[in-house]
Amino acid sequence: MNFSELPVLAEPGLAARVQHAIDHKTKPLGALGRVEALALQLALIQGVERPALREPQLVVFAADHGLSRRGVSAYPREVTPQMVANMLAGGAAVSVLARQQGLALTIADCGVDAPLADGAVDLRIAPGTADASIGPAMTGEQAGRALRNGMALVERLPGNALLLGEMGIGNTSSASLLMQRLTGLPLVDCVGRGTGLDDAGVARKLAVLGEALAVNAGAQAPLQIAAALGGFEIVTMAGSVIAAAAQRRVVVVDGFITTAAVALAEALRPGVLAACVFAHCSAEGPHARWLQQLGARPLLDLDLRLGEGSGAALAWPLLPAACALLADMASFESAGVSNRD
Amino acid sequence: MNFSELPVLAEPGLAARVQHAIDHKTKPLGALGRVEALALQLALIQGVERPALREPQLVVFAADHGLSRRGVSAYPREVTPQMVANMLAGGAAVSVLARQQGLALTIADCGVDAPLADGAVDLRIAPGTADASIGPAMTGEQAGRALRNGMALVERLPGNALLLGEMGIGNTSSASLLMQRLTGLPLVDCVGRGTGLDDAGVARKLAVLGEALAVNAGAQAPLQIAAALGGFEIVTMAGSVIAAAAQRRVVVVDGFITTAAVALAEALRPGVLAACVFAHCSAEGPHARWLQQLGARPLLDLDLRLGEGSGAALAWPLLPAACALLADMASFESAGVSNRD
Repeated sequence: MNFSELPVLAEPGLAARVQHAIDHKTKPLGALGRVEALALQLALIQGVERPALREPQLVVFAADHGLSRRGVSAYPREVTPQMVANMLAGGAAVSVLARQQGLALTIADCGVDAPLADGAVDLRIAPGTADASIGPAMTGEQAGRALRNGMALVERLPGNALLLGEMGIGNTSSASLLMQRLTGLPLVDCVGRGTGLDDAGVARKLAVLGEALAVNAGAQAPLQIAAALGGFEIVTMAGSVIAAAAQRRVVVVDGFITTAAVALAEALRPGVLAACVFAHCSAEGPHARWLQQLGARPLLDLDLRLGEGSGAALAWPLLPAACALLADMASFESAGVSNRD
Repeated sequence: MNFSELPVLAEPGLAARVQHAIDHKTKPLGALGRVEALALQLALIQGVERPALREPQLVVFAADHGLSRRGVSAYPREVTPQMVANMLAGGAAVSVLARQQGLALTIADCGVDAPLADGAVDLRIAPGTADASIGPAMTGEQAGRALRNGMALVERLPGNALLLGEMGIGNTSSASLLMQRLTGLPLVDCVGRGTGLDDAGVARKLAVLGEALAVNAGAQAPLQIAAALGGFEIVTMAGSVIAAAAQRRVVVVDGFITTAAVALAEALRPGVLAACVFAHCSAEGPHARWLQQLGARPLLDLDLRLGEGSGAALAWPLLPAACALLADMASFESAGVSNRD
């Protein structure tokens, strides 16, 4: 694997210059709270004093999981291709939100267990991963290919912002496995109810994921972890995150599963987190803890747990708003407003 | 005072029908979290199964306060007309955000201590309230006139959504006084740093506000409270809230001061809260507590404390998003997606 070098995101003096501009806008110091921090982050990602966003791309990475045959989800496996079709037909939440927010929507089939849907981008590795509870979810070759697919996809997309979405029945299980291995937290702290498991379902999920961690105990290096515990959509997404960060695109992270992809990308290529804006804290139990562990402060906290990129799309308008405030607000001097006594 | 009757916001069966539609959308039950609750609230406000928002109006209610001569703010009194001019010139945060979000912006001068600015709507009662620390901030006649002005303003505005903003050096003091009198909480729990007071400034503010409460101890009925402790912008805004709710417009509440106006409107005309969407929890200390006391769950929590309507404008995109999800998402049946096992 030969990743291109990430640019140095922090340029000497830029942060200070942007902060100075923010502090001289016509408002009490710090009064726009975390929107000011967001504006500063966007400036640093783009390496300019006046960041601007253009042609934002929401990509839904979709794939199936061997683990979904082990009863780890409240929904049957065939829902993955059904929801891909629903997204392409415009009826899924992410379709509605992308349309409404002016986000270009791409559905990338990274390995759905059904024929390629009309309109989906073909990044298929195989019709679903292998069952991670009895061995690695994929081979090292497949993981490498998925990463390169993700990178190449970003090269082809216009714009300077990538919003992450995903679809894959069983993919909270893969995300939980990655969280456990990447953070070292107890498995029970890494597992939630997914799309709505009851207590017995969570217990079953915990048992199956325990098996997966045990049988893949040898996978400790980032690329090995990706292959053993990942999903095709998650590893492909990690590749896209790495390429997007290298190109100084803004990456908007959605919920628990996209956080897994970003954490995996950070393990593979330390530094990419600097390009990531975390859209929301999911109601999926372990997400809050993982965000905290990553030092991430999400923008929204609306009890969302849908995935698809829906949270990224809902938070999106805050980013152009932050850019507009930085670009267009008057300073005390220019507006002739008295500063504090 | 003769307020028109509020419509009955809850129509028999409507909530159940809307909830049924939400629950059959292609997503796990409840997975859109508080956006689902928002969609339901918008439907109930409008009394329809598919709410739609048109021509949203952001109104900044501006006025000066007698209390600002008592050193209760970190900024000098002349900042009120200066910021009104900045808003009209397009350089204030609220101007930038209104433009960026497609919100019509109206600046209503309810009693600024300066000549009427070009482009502002004339709802002037007087050049600033009297000093509430030595007597009522305004007469009962002035309070009644401000309420009627606010109602009449809404009658003239198109659209079906009203976003609340305000400008007035010293108006966190008026809001704190109203909070204390309306909630009965200790004054110290109702006072924050405003635009950025230090500890000594907060102590001075507390002392002055204590005087105001003592000298206006007899004001206990809602309209008396409005006159004794209100500001012209706050009382005018309360009138607008009452008229907007009566017309089933959606009212989007910004921070601490607009919450004061809404709480005052609710005291004057119980029921208006049902029409209110709370945009954010301000970093102004007492706001969180007041929201809790009102049973309000704000959409954003971004440490904003600017006012002007900036938080209402930042939260705004969530409202059309909620409407779009309710209108355009497919159901399991229509999309041919399998529901849970």
